[in-house]
Amino acid sequence: MADLRPDRYIEASALGLDLYQGVAELPIVSPHGHIDVRLFADPAARLDPPGRLFVTADHYVGRMLYSQGVPLERVGVGQNDVDDRAVWQVLADNMHLFALTPTRLWLRETLATVFGIEEPLDSSSAAAIYARVEEQLATPAFAPRALLDRFHVECLSTTDSAGASLEEHRALGGRVRPTFRPDAAVALDAPGWRAALAELEAAAGREIGDYPAFVEALADRRAAFKAAGATATDHATTSADTTRLSPGEASALFALALAGSVSPAEARRFEAHMLNESARMSTDDGLVMQLHVGSVRDHNGPLAALFGRDIGGDIPVATDWTRGLRPLLEAHGNDPRLTLILFTLDESTYSRELAPLAGHYPAVMLGCPWWFHDSPAGIDRFLDRVVETAGVYNLAGFVDDARALTALPVRHDLWRRRTCGWLARKVEAGFLGEEEAHGLARELAHGLVRRAYRLGA
Amino acid sequence: MADLRPDRYIEASALGLDLYQGVAELPIVSPHGHIDVRLFADPAARLDPPGRLFVTADHYVGRMLYSQGVPLERVGVGQNDVDDRAVWQVLADNMHLFALTPTRLWLRETLATVFGIEEPLDSSSAAAIYARVEEQLATPAFAPRALLDRFHVECLSTTDSAGASLEEHRALGGRVRPTFRPDAAVALDAPGWRAALAELEAAAGREIGDYPAFVEALADRRAAFKAAGATATDHATTSADTTRLSPGEASALFALALAGSVSPAEARRFEAHMLNESARMSTDDGLVMQLHVGSVRDHNGPLAALFGRDIGGDIPVATDWTRGLRPLLEAHGNDPRLTLILFTLDESTYSRELAPLAGHYPAVMLGCPWWFHDSPAGIDRFLDRVVETAGVYNLAGFVDDARALTALPVRHDLWRRRTCGWLARKVEAGFLGEEEAHGLARELAHGLVRRAYRLGA
Amino acid sequence: MADLRPDRYIEASALGLDLYQGVAELPIVSPHGHIDVRLFADPAARLDPPGRLFVTADHYVGRMLYSQGVPLERVGVGQNDVDDRAVWQVLADNMHLFALTPTRLWLRETLATVFGIEEPLDSSSAAAIYARVEEQLATPAFAPRALLDRFHVECLSTTDSAGASLEEHRALGGRVRPTFRPDAAVALDAPGWRAALAELEAAAGREIGDYPAFVEALADRRAAFKAAGATATDHATTSADTTRLSPGEASALFALALAGSVSPAEARRFEAHMLNESARMSTDDGLVMQLHVGSVRDHNGPLAALFGRDIGGDIPVATDWTRGLRPLLEAHGNDPRLTLILFTLDESTYSRELAPLAGHYPAVMLGCPWWFHDSPAGIDRFLDRVVETAGVYNLAGFVDDARALTALPVRHDLWRRRTCGWLARKVEAGFLGEEEAHGLARELAHGLVRRAYRLGA
Repeated sequence: MADLRPDRYIEASALGLDLYQGVAELPIVSPHGHIDVRLFADPAARLDPPGRLFVTADHYVGRMLYSQGVPLERVGVGQNDVDDRAVWQVLADNMHLFALTPTRLWLRETLATVFGIEEPLDSSSAAAIYARVEEQLATPAFAPRALLDRFHVECLSTTDSAGASLEEHRALGGRVRPTFRPDAAVALDAPGWRAALAELEAAAGREIGDYPAFVEALADRRAAFKAAGATATDHATTSADTTRLSPGEASALFALALAGSVSPAEARRFEAHMLNESARMSTDDGLVMQLHVGSVRDHNGPLAALFGRDIGGDIPVATDWTRGLRPLLEAHGNDPRLTLILFTLDESTYSRELAPLAGHYPAVMLGCPWWFHDSPAGIDRFLDRVVETAGVYNLAGFVDDARALTALPVRHDLWRRRTCGWLARKVEAGFLGEEEAHGLARELAHGLVRRAYRLGA
Repeated sequence: MADLRPDRYIEASALGLDLYQGVAELPIVSPHGHIDVRLFADPAARLDPPGRLFVTADHYVGRMLYSQGVPLERVGVGQNDVDDRAVWQVLADNMHLFALTPTRLWLRETLATVFGIEEPLDSSSAAAIYARVEEQLATPAFAPRALLDRFHVECLSTTDSAGASLEEHRALGGRVRPTFRPDAAVALDAPGWRAALAELEAAAGREIGDYPAFVEALADRRAAFKAAGATATDHATTSADTTRLSPGEASALFALALAGSVSPAEARRFEAHMLNESARMSTDDGLVMQLHVGSVRDHNGPLAALFGRDIGGDIPVATDWTRGLRPLLEAHGNDPRLTLILFTLDESTYSRELAPLAGHYPAVMLGCPWWFHDSPAGIDRFLDRVVETAGVYNLAGFVDDARALTALPVRHDLWRRRTCGWLARKVEAGFLGEEEAHGLARELAHGLVRRAYRLGA
Repeated sequence: MADLRPDRYIEASALGLDLYQGVAELPIVSPHGHIDVRLFADPAARLDPPGRLFVTADHYVGRMLYSQGVPLERVGVGQNDVDDRAVWQVLADNMHLFALTPTRLWLRETLATVFGIEEPLDSSSAAAIYARVEEQLATPAFAPRALLDRFHVECLSTTDSAGASLEEHRALGGRVRPTFRPDAAVALDAPGWRAALAELEAAAGREIGDYPAFVEALADRRAAFKAAGATATDHATTSADTTRLSPGEASALFALALAGSVSPAEARRFEAHMLNESARMSTDDGLVMQLHVGSVRDHNGPLAALFGRDIGGDIPVATDWTRGLRPLLEAHGNDPRLTLILFTLDESTYSRELAPLAGHYPAVMLGCPWWFHDSPAGIDRFLDRVVETAGVYNLAGFVDDARALTALPVRHDLWRRRTCGWLARKVEAGFLGEEEAHGLARELAHGLVRRAYRLGA
């Protein structure tokens, strides 16, 4: 790969680097991600070994290797006795597959800036690099809490089921916050629904025998999350539909599910209703509502049957935000108490639907490029397509969505480099003054996300 | 903001500026917009005061302010006793929200090039700038007719209902032309339909008791518009459907509407039919047909109920041009007497549908980027996606779609700067010779639009 | 036009030209196109005269001229006694229409690099250039087989119906390969279906009285194609649906077709099923499966009724790859014996669906930009949107899809220039090392396509 020169990934004149240097050291606010809270709760906890950390647990890596014929078993997925060094070697042997992907960029930057390893990873260097990474991971400097300090993490939110205990979050007291994600309890037809419901019942300390009790239990848990530091909820669906059901219809569908006879179509109608209902609850309790729409989960059914969920077989579809969100927005979109942050996998909606929605409804803000689109070119496409209509102040800043703590600084750094390069090009073309560009760079790196997620002034 | 340097917004080498200078002073042809003809008919007419002109009447401004929590009342929408200075101050206090939007670019350029005010508008400069703008607006040099001269407006078309009197247009004799927009009379289920029908009856001087009489009245009015200088019609729908009904079906739907019992779905079928019928009428009378598709009007129902239409709550949806237009195009698309100019809010159709349609059917031409997409980056996306397939000569040039007369020169200037920059980059990359680029720049600025709208050689 | 300078179309620094020079002379692998095999089979065969070769037979040219009012008769379409010089003159007189289109770029490059004619084609030069082209076409150096040598064509595949004789391919022995395209025999409701079925029966040497016999005949023919050098099949549909039918349903639909009473909807269901079935057959015989989705053929019905198919009236529509391909991929997408190469006309699916599918399923590879999108800007959009998610190694390289043998080198050259420019910009921005860029340039020009189409290591 290329040298790690200071202005890498910025793609602008000297002003781009100048803007970047003004924000490079700002603290990290990370209000959405998938790191397990237990890593922070137990001072003795350590990160996974290199193969698991960088390969097995990273579905970006596993999916690419699988697409090129590497069996998931060799990536360590679904295995018990895994040779972690062998898993790492598979990655090293296939580094060419990742050329020009964010995966390789993140890996390389993480090795260089977090572990001090600038030597390229390849088949021959794999063993030596493994040893150096493994050694460092074992040191107290790489304890998760120590990394939060080293990375200047001002605040980090985990993503937690509706029935999560929240003990760890309460003990941590504020820097690590929970996020209320009720999806498993809402998906009436999913195999795990009854377990999720039982967990919710236990956590809420009440039986859930009907729909009103279900909503009350959710409201209770939202209050508990808020008390434990949460400022946001998270919801993920395939469709943006938010059609509200009458209380009778909602109760009937919930009863069908309890009786084990709800159809997939009915379950989807209930999900749509619950998005609307969640927005209503947010106007009550002030929790910011995140909505991730557009993925067909477990598209590769046979593989999911063998290896379980989250193995890379989720594939996006087109999303109709305009018609889908209308019921929710007509009910709550003009309410200043609601903040609704939208994440899409359908880039064609950036300029067509999302920017017009965010540039009109007080409640709507736009989340940063999500998943496949959190990439150098993806960030440009996002900014090019939304800012002219929605402006900068309807954006919710950056979330890293990270699963590995070590990837945190790199993901924020790439966002900062790309946004600064983009701003610098706007200055060069006469669209923006230099001083204002410095201010917007700080907003994009730090200010917007804190305000959108209600994490301080 | 940045200085107003000569090559601003061009984003190309010196050739870009050179191309731009070759077209900067060409006259303005403005065949589609929303300026009230009465401004030109009455020599004593003056433009609105600054707050109303730049804020209240500009839905781009109102929507952005509303999205960030400014009540529409403070923008002056739907109010009687408005403090115009206070409305202007709201804009000045919130200029940061408009960073990198075309709204701010247009405002800034208008203040600088039309009013001679280069000082940035902000909270502290608001009062002084208001006074300077207000003062100038009151002078004879800012009378609407005087501005037409100053802006080198060769011709300007207004947009008028099917029942418009056309008295003013007839009096103005040619430079200001009407455009026939029958939408209100065609939307059988809209609250204003009966009023529009009554207006049409009065203007056509005949009772409209059934569908054949309706079509005859429309044909009469088209002839009257043509006699008053019109060269075009305009139609706006949510869907591109143009399925033709049998005469019996059309008559039955019209009768249902008269009886007050037409359903929304039936009204949409009638609209689709009337697009097809309008194309047929254009093959008779030679009026150019403009079609604007893809906006869900009044998406924010509760707000529209409070403040009425056109307050920024229109949100685009995906459009199926290929299947939608097929009935119209199979019937009339090979007819050299028809010119059909298409405007979209769905950029994903630029390369997929619109350029292939324009690059095949003799009748089809492509309108310039519309609404949210009439922006610096939007213009690039349009050219990048359509020209390779449709060429330059299937484009209909630029329309400004302006509501404020003072915005006219700026909108055309931005289009000229961006098209010249785009052409210059093509020359630099070896795709185009320099001399040909000069010719294409003139076509894009002036020639194409005159021919497409049949306004002269 | 601009001069033909060495770094034309590359749009990058000196490194871009350097990368290009490293691949400019690599042999051409052309595994998909539409050149008639008889041109190669008969040593005395010569290419068509200039008007037919460059105008009548090129639907890119005909459609553009038609869109600007040139009757198809003047382009020579559907005519018997055509004045070839007059057809050529029509093109020359209208060269301005093609400014900035790939059509003009290909034409100009072909004249310059294949015929040695750098003088611009226009009305006044038309006759002289015609004479020079016509003269050269008659020489042995322009015999089709000689051109294969001159263009360094390593291998070229034609596209052939299921009932093709394959005699010529067998005689040519390997350099010119057939491709199995069964579409005409699968489209149960098409006017030509019975003729295609009869051709298939004759070639397979068996009666096809029911669905099982149909599938057996197809399997026989696939084996014959493979024996004649084929490594791939090709399939084109409007929709990506691949829903499998039960054997009983498939048999019933086939019987309906034989009885002349199959509906269009039933025919589409059968087509979807046959895509699935074709993938299954590929897992048996190892033929690579190409799938071209998203064109509404003969959109302009009245014109097709006058002039027949393939006259430019095909218009793309949106495609749902994710849901459409799911049945096929769940059945065969994890099977290492299948290679499925996808071509789209819906660029919005590049990042949303195609790259995620290719970056997960072992069977899926992405074909290069197709048809309207095989253009300078189209190539950039493709690479920008797919590589970050799918990487480079899930791409199937370049196919030229050419109808004219003389266009072959130019099409490959443009792809090589654009990919090298794109790679150079990645190096300059710090995403890629220079040495790796050279390797990827060679993969994109030559390596990927050979492996994807199973044409050698």
